[in-house]
Amino acid sequence: MKNYVIGIDLGGTKISCAISDLEGQVISQNTVPTNAHEGDVPVLNRIIGSVETVLRDGNISIDMVKAIGIGSPGPLDAKTGIIITTPNLPFKNFDIVKPLEEKFNVPVYLDNDANVAAIGEFMFGAAKGTENMVYFTVSTGVGGGAVVNGKVYRGNTSNALEIGHITVLPDGPRCGCGNLGCLEAVASGTAIGKRGKEAVESKVETTLKNYENVTSYEVFKEAAAGDAVSIEIIDSCLNYLGIGVANAIAIFDPEMIVIGGGVSKAGKVVFDKVQQVIDKRCFKTMAESCKVVPAGLGTDAGVIGAVALAILESK
Amino acid sequence: MKNYVIGIDLGGTKISCAISDLEGQVISQNTVPTNAHEGDVPVLNRIIGSVETVLRDGNISIDMVKAIGIGSPGPLDAKTGIIITTPNLPFKNFDIVKPLEEKFNVPVYLDNDANVAAIGEFMFGAAKGTENMVYFTVSTGVGGGAVVNGKVYRGNTSNALEIGHITVLPDGPRCGCGNLGCLEAVASGTAIGKRGKEAVESKVETTLKNYENVTSYEVFKEAAAGDAVSIEIIDSCLNYLGIGVANAIAIFDPEMIVIGGGVSKAGKVVFDKVQQVIDKRCFKTMAESCKVVPAGLGTDAGVIGAVALAILESK
Repeated sequence: MKNYVIGIDLGGTKISCAISDLEGQVISQNTVPTNAHEGDVPVLNRIIGSVETVLRDGNISIDMVKAIGIGSPGPLDAKTGIIITTPNLPFKNFDIVKPLEEKFNVPVYLDNDANVAAIGEFMFGAAKGTENMVYFTVSTGVGGGAVVNGKVYRGNTSNALEIGHITVLPDGPRCGCGNLGCLEAVASGTAIGKRGKEAVESKVETTLKNYENVTSYEVFKEAAAGDAVSIEIIDSCLNYLGIGVANAIAIFDPEMIVIGGGVSKAGKVVFDKVQQVIDKRCFKTMAESCKVVPAGLGTDAGVIGAVALAILESK
Repeated sequence: MKNYVIGIDLGGTKISCAISDLEGQVISQNTVPTNAHEGDVPVLNRIIGSVETVLRDGNISIDMVKAIGIGSPGPLDAKTGIIITTPNLPFKNFDIVKPLEEKFNVPVYLDNDANVAAIGEFMFGAAKGTENMVYFTVSTGVGGGAVVNGKVYRGNTSNALEIGHITVLPDGPRCGCGNLGCLEAVASGTAIGKRGKEAVESKVETTLKNYENVTSYEVFKEAAAGDAVSIEIIDSCLNYLGIGVANAIAIFDPEMIVIGGGVSKAGKVVFDKVQQVIDKRCFKTMAESCKVVPAGLGTDAGVIGAVALAILESK
């Protein structure tokens, strides 16, 4: 019986690999450094080695494995299994699926890390039991994923839910992508940190000036301590995040919105403000039927999401 | 063999009913006045009469009918078959599905008119052959529907794709829904007409002053004739429409966006501006892989959409 799946979380600094049963219970897990500078084939071989390790540690034969799921930074093409390019991995137009399928003779599924996180939350995290959910990750950038009618939604070029690049302020600041006023340009951790730095460099009075380097972490911290400028920055940025979430509710009418990523760790201040914007901007029925909650999976979210991808896709 | 379906388009002034084969070829069609003032039961009876007429005219027995589809203004609950309320129909929390199922002993499917139009375009109109498409209707208001992974997407409370109520200008004009800066408040036909009227009532020089009543029609007309104020209004409103469409591309990564409704009839000026905004604001891969086209179904779009709903849901 094929009662197990393997999940692989590909990251710029480490590769995590886990073997799990079909309920997401991890049997064995292995983490190795990526050593991206060594190039694509050595990294691929390290992935293969990691898979062999979890099989051996879990005392499970590959014949008992139903599927392998891989979460990777993008852009990538989930349909063809090709990693197009990523800033911190050595893969350029690299077919990661085929060599693993050939090696292990098991179906292999690839998806980007935001989708994988969404699937993880849907199957084993905060959104367990829902049919329609949207996942936001708010950290350096803003990304997302959606499960609609019980299935992950990828779109035509595997780029669906580039929710960080919807325009929420048409004449707002320039985003890294080139557009003006993207959600990511006004509501990411980077955006919060940037506005903190601008305050430090200006004449305004703010306790942010006590820091050598200002990131969103310091802005949240000083806002909590009562610094008026920090409070204003946080409130403004979270207002835009709330607009992004409210727009997702108007479009998806989901049962749940899950927010993960570094910024979400600030907790109550984030969720209170987002809820306030939703209550102001959304239709009442939709706002009331949609729960907005923090991500439920912890530090292993990446590898658990990859496990969930393997289970969902091989159903 | 059940080789036919029936589509019903419920409107405030008329009820259209058609019987069609499973390829959407209409066999017979019937249109009667709604006479909404007579109340719910008489209107229901007129719907039943219209169904009987198309069966008789088409010489088709009800045993040969696979399903009935109904498109109605909303809000409604597609899951339970209940029309919650509509401005121009006598139905309040009215179960329209059950009496028709009992009468004809055939599965009956209800959906709101924007979803039905989306399904119609997906099956028989401009989006035929796609797997993922988003439909915008831009007229008095702005509405929408989406087909994802080959299925219509309704969301948790049947309100998905309230695309007219995404915020595109956070401090923009008040929308009828109460929110500020909804797409509908800045890009609908009503919004265009309102800005035309404001111009007439102001000191600005504009040929719109030659009209007693200014709607979007006059603003488009005078813009085409070279009136600078009208050109500015059209350009600004279509810029917001473009932002709405660009946001839908970032979220759905669809193969196609179909734009219907009165405003889309202005043609090239609409589609050129929308495309320009997409090219400016969207990721290149997504922009290039997504066609933006006018609706393909004409005046019978409502009833053909209802036929398509019946076919799609009974598959």
